Amino acid sequence: MTLSEPTATTTAAGPGQPEPSAELDELYRGFAAEGLVPLWTEIGDLMPTEPRSGAVPHLWRWAHLLPLAERAGDLVPVGRGGERRAIALANPGLAGRPFVSPTLWAAIQYLNPREDAPVHRHTQNAFRFVVEGEGVWTVVNGDPVAMRRGDFLPQAGWNWHGHHNQSATAMAWIDGLDIPFQHYADATFFETGPEHVETQEAPARSGSEQLWGHPGLRPLTHLAPSPASPLLAYRWEHTDRALSDQLALEAAGTRCTVEPGHAAVRYCNPTTGGDVLPTLRAEFHRLAPGVRTATTRSTGAQVFQVFDGTGEVHAGEHTWTVGRGDLFVVPSWVPWDVASEHGLDLFVFGDAPIFEKLHLARSDAAS
Amino acid sequence: MTLSEPTATTTAAGPGQPEPSAELDELYRGFAAEGLVPLWTEIGDLMPTEPRSGAVPHLWRWAHLLPLAERAGDLVPVGRGGERRAIALANPGLAGRPFVSPTLWAAIQYLNPREDAPVHRHTQNAFRFVVEGEGVWTVVNGDPVAMRRGDFLPQAGWNWHGHHNQSATAMAWIDGLDIPFQHYADATFFETGPEHVETQEAPARSGSEQLWGHPGLRPLTHLAPSPASPLLAYRWEHTDRALSDQLALEAAGTRCTVEPGHAAVRYCNPTTGGDVLPTLRAEFHRLAPGVRTATTRSTGAQVFQVFDGTGEVHAGEHTWTVGRGDLFVVPSWVPWDVASEHGLDLFVFGDAPIFEKLHLARSDAAS
Amino acid sequence: MTLSEPTATTTAAGPGQPEPSAELDELYRGFAAEGLVPLWTEIGDLMPTEPRSGAVPHLWRWAHLLPLAERAGDLVPVGRGGERRAIALANPGLAGRPFVSPTLWAAIQYLNPREDAPVHRHTQNAFRFVVEGEGVWTVVNGDPVAMRRGDFLPQAGWNWHGHHNQSATAMAWIDGLDIPFQHYADATFFETGPEHVETQEAPARSGSEQLWGHPGLRPLTHLAPSPASPLLAYRWEHTDRALSDQLALEAAGTRCTVEPGHAAVRYCNPTTGGDVLPTLRAEFHRLAPGVRTATTRSTGAQVFQVFDGTGEVHAGEHTWTVGRGDLFVVPSWVPWDVASEHGLDLFVFGDAPIFEKLHLARSDAAS
Amino acid sequence: MTLSEPTATTTAAGPGQPEPSAELDELYRGFAAEGLVPLWTEIGDLMPTEPRSGAVPHLWRWAHLLPLAERAGDLVPVGRGGERRAIALANPGLAGRPFVSPTLWAAIQYLNPREDAPVHRHTQNAFRFVVEGEGVWTVVNGDPVAMRRGDFLPQAGWNWHGHHNQSATAMAWIDGLDIPFQHYADATFFETGPEHVETQEAPARSGSEQLWGHPGLRPLTHLAPSPASPLLAYRWEHTDRALSDQLALEAAGTRCTVEPGHAAVRYCNPTTGGDVLPTLRAEFHRLAPGVRTATTRSTGAQVFQVFDGTGEVHAGEHTWTVGRGDLFVVPSWVPWDVASEHGLDLFVFGDAPIFEKLHLARSDAAS
Repeated sequence: MTLSEPTATTTAAGPGQPEPSAELDELYRGFAAEGLVPLWTEIGDLMPTEPRSGAVPHLWRWAHLLPLAERAGDLVPVGRGGERRAIALANPGLAGRPFVSPTLWAAIQYLNPREDAPVHRHTQNAFRFVVEGEGVWTVVNGDPVAMRRGDFLPQAGWNWHGHHNQSATAMAWIDGLDIPFQHYADATFFETGPEHVETQEAPARSGSEQLWGHPGLRPLTHLAPSPASPLLAYRWEHTDRALSDQLALEAAGTRCTVEPGHAAVRYCNPTTGGDVLPTLRAEFHRLAPGVRTATTRSTGAQVFQVFDGTGEVHAGEHTWTVGRGDLFVVPSWVPWDVASEHGLDLFVFGDAPIFEKLHLARSDAAS
Repeated sequence: MTLSEPTATTTAAGPGQPEPSAELDELYRGFAAEGLVPLWTEIGDLMPTEPRSGAVPHLWRWAHLLPLAERAGDLVPVGRGGERRAIALANPGLAGRPFVSPTLWAAIQYLNPREDAPVHRHTQNAFRFVVEGEGVWTVVNGDPVAMRRGDFLPQAGWNWHGHHNQSATAMAWIDGLDIPFQHYADATFFETGPEHVETQEAPARSGSEQLWGHPGLRPLTHLAPSPASPLLAYRWEHTDRALSDQLALEAAGTRCTVEPGHAAVRYCNPTTGGDVLPTLRAEFHRLAPGVRTATTRSTGAQVFQVFDGTGEVHAGEHTWTVGRGDLFVVPSWVPWDVASEHGLDLFVFGDAPIFEKLHLARSDAAS
Repeated sequence: MTLSEPTATTTAAGPGQPEPSAELDELYRGFAAEGLVPLWTEIGDLMPTEPRSGAVPHLWRWAHLLPLAERAGDLVPVGRGGERRAIALANPGLAGRPFVSPTLWAAIQYLNPREDAPVHRHTQNAFRFVVEGEGVWTVVNGDPVAMRRGDFLPQAGWNWHGHHNQSATAMAWIDGLDIPFQHYADATFFETGPEHVETQEAPARSGSEQLWGHPGLRPLTHLAPSPASPLLAYRWEHTDRALSDQLALEAAGTRCTVEPGHAAVRYCNPTTGGDVLPTLRAEFHRLAPGVRTATTRSTGAQVFQVFDGTGEVHAGEHTWTVGRGDLFVVPSWVPWDVASEHGLDLFVFGDAPIFEKLHLARSDAAS
Repeated sequence: MTLSEPTATTTAAGPGQPEPSAELDELYRGFAAEGLVPLWTEIGDLMPTEPRSGAVPHLWRWAHLLPLAERAGDLVPVGRGGERRAIALANPGLAGRPFVSPTLWAAIQYLNPREDAPVHRHTQNAFRFVVEGEGVWTVVNGDPVAMRRGDFLPQAGWNWHGHHNQSATAMAWIDGLDIPFQHYADATFFETGPEHVETQEAPARSGSEQLWGHPGLRPLTHLAPSPASPLLAYRWEHTDRALSDQLALEAAGTRCTVEPGHAAVRYCNPTTGGDVLPTLRAEFHRLAPGVRTATTRSTGAQVFQVFDGTGEVHAGEHTWTVGRGDLFVVPSWVPWDVASEHGLDLFVFGDAPIFEKLHLARSDAAS
């Protein structure tokens, strides 16, 4: 056991700190010997007046990510052991760990024509979001689900799943998971299944959409609430239409937008109306041309991907001009806003359910 | 105060009953004088071993209802005071009251071309279901909602609403409400609004559908659960497709039907996944040709309307051959089943939420 | 089938009513023949602008009730068939039915020395409240629970229970149940058990109190929420102390009373914090000398029993001076208040959970 | 940004790993330059087949802790800045951080006669548990709450609180908090209040106990559920009696113990019946002489303190003989059991609510 001995004794005592002395040094050695650390030397770091995340706001350019993923497609096999050809965004503030924020994982995944990502299941909650391309089916408990531009595909923990590229072209997409959180909390279980997906079928609609994809209708055989959404694909045509409808309603005088010209939907679990996954929230925002959002901040981290259009993002001290495919992270309690001259479609996910369920959610407008 | 004096004293005592005597007569007179009634003379009626509804199974033929509604269209105005040209199903067991069951109201409503049903609001929860016709818009808090064959239109308590026939033909539909229940419970509030609906607009989709009609998507401005569905129209195209999808999935080997060949959906509140209205449940069932449902019974009453096809209904001692538009009621704890040689589409509503929320729901298979 | 034919046609039409005519008479005969009743002739009764209960405010004097119960103790056996020597308060507005309100049953029950009330169970939720006396044990699923002055003893539906008078003196107490509601809703199941209670033990504390009677502590073997309280006795010593504590806290400057000098507790289900029974609410109120409550009204009925002290009650048009043991009912939406010159302890129960769970609860201050 | 470049390329590829090559090295350099880390080199650590906590089972002896706390009482002031004279258990597996597990903080706190710990509030949820001594009042939002042996005192996030030693002798106790979790999640807010507690009153019962300390009774002014318990002291007399009652009931034939001779209670929030704090669970277990618990494991960490008696603990590979005051931690998914020859009273807290609310809870019997 190698506990770091506080070294505050070598300098003058700060407020509320003991005077340096030989006796204090001896006491601190006693603490270390017994596996103890005092609060009074640690409190400034441990209990700040407001969240000071180790993570920092950061931007990853799609134009840089995609070629690296394509190159990985040449050099790196996908199969049992490595499991997925996924390359994670590593927040520069988090010491080289593949964590976009303390709790969140975001990665670009890449599958060559006719390739399979092997079947496995894990307690981590996951989703896929497609900024471009098509041709891959994710097969969840035997149900093949097509993935196409604009689709959001949640994948709740502990369901068997693999991916299969049915097409003649490679495809890349984004994975979001709670890997860092479950790793931190020691909650992780993982199990491997077959090396290849069990079906090569490519139906137009998945079974989950046939059962759950009808607004306000619930199969009589599935009446109990489930912790995660049973709907495995939220199709772009619905998301796009919902956003257009909000802006049309706003134009007709209905108050239904977050702020003028700013439409937004949350992906929800139809069995409860709550978040789509137990630990992850996902939303889609549309800014009409000329809109700038209010500056806000909230506990919890958020990861954004530009789906279409361009915008200017402010996050803490950073200002970025962003376009299609670009990804950026806003850590807990960092103020942010987005402005768009010509219109912007923005996908976002975060860890808000963790904060809300544990009564740790806070947000405010920030100047 | 005129309390009925028990007359059991004039005959021999039953089990657990006191012996007839002059003293007992005097005691009973004392009870009556003080506004008291003993349990022991009433218990057989009050506390039966299982529900014995005063309501009886009964069938109303659409072919008889519709002409009467049309005739009412000739003779009865619709306007402030009478409020609606609605004609209620009166269960023969309920003493001529306009109650299809102790808790439920079911009526045919009729609106002539260009007519308005005046605006009002009430605590009673309501819905409309359309078995045929179109042309009427129900206007809810200013939002015009078209009504067409197969549509289910919930109308939660205390929302302003009126109806307007925009077309050149009369239209009839079915109303379901909890009027008897709220009347019984002394829960009723009612308020009148304008004599005419405030808008004559006839949009293809209502505002409520624009906000809430996208599967699994929720407007960011409406995140709190609401006690009733904010979606004001459940369109036939969605219901029909959901049922077809279930039968297709069943044919492909997925277990997703109530029983083989019997598809069913429940209309739900997208903000909670629960019932569409606080006191009313509504579902749509489809029987493939040749299917006979299991015989079941449950606490609470159910009212059915045949939407399409034909079938043979057994309800208690009754057997009816039913077709399009026919309505029938199955009171609490009466066993029932339906069989269809050529296929049947069946709408049903009931008071199950009352029983479930108060922990009084029971059901079983009955021979 | 004998449906009453509307007779409005014989007089001039009211607002929104059709003109009397022979054709209208024929239409109404057609309605009656088909089991139909129009809304427009019924709406005034069915959908009033606010609740107009058939039940009326009424007072029953303990000094009149108790002698009748004692006399019943002489003349009426208690045993299988009659089940209980219970005499119900019959609201003068409810046609001689043993219903204190449309939903509620309130009765005085009487047990002679060494008598047993036979074991049965029923879906009706029940409680006992003891205004004076002791000596009876209610035995619930084999757990003997002593009944003493001031105790509140809930008895959730479908638990086996009987009563046994262990003492040499007769005892009377009050039963409250939802018999009228369950009878109305056709929800009633009833089953008989042994003629005599299975145990004659008389422990100081019941098993339920040993498991559940410790504030904020829950047995690790019972972690699931239950629809009704598992605590079978709420002892007077706790209720009394909770009320005294509130008044002491108020005197020390804490805002914790309903209004100055008016302390109150609600009996709760420790597994949820909610109402003690699925359909019934029960509370205990204490007015310090000189206090008059605000005048309020709410949907739902309330039945009060004076536990100690004296007061002046106003309920609608009625004014009563009440004392120990007196019972009175306030129907839905009737304004009421109580004033006490010398202090008053007041037990009350009602059907509020029905209204709250079905989103029908309303209340306001009324002048 | 210094991302660690994977070094797997220098050795032969493992299963599912790419072959080492110059091109692969270049790809990995490209990843590092863009702030990316591949999954396939990290998956073994990040996604193990079951939880492998960095934390280890560990024991701290009260006989070693207390003298160090007393010595800190001599050398370390308590006041603004350091805030508390608290000395935290530092898990040997967690790199010298003052974390007893990844999510949990456990510390011994020490207050000299007449000392004050200054008033502050923070989002961290906290509790105190007293294994010996008395004389300190914790003052929560102005309500002074005495602390005595056996008492459990929850302190939900964001309430003002300070401590005051009213007595002539020093006092030590245990603090449990979710400091590591909130630090990890970037959820922490902290605010300072007065340097000294606002009241020196020492009432026998706190206001919170006067309002909330009556089993099953709820003040009518506090009917909404609260995320944490409003009851600020769970007194030893209640805990002790609840455990004795369970063992007495078990002896009389009632199944109410975790296993034979093993009684246990959970500290609960009376407004919901759920856990006492949003992120922390706390329980008290009593083993009768001769009892050995089943060996179990679960996700989440647990920290135990022996309250009385002696026992033998097995936790993973460790075996410890423990006595009064000793503290030990069992990390996530480590199997453990306890045996006691002469009887054992054991306090325990953990992070189970985090796992349950996020649907990550698992447990099983382990051999």
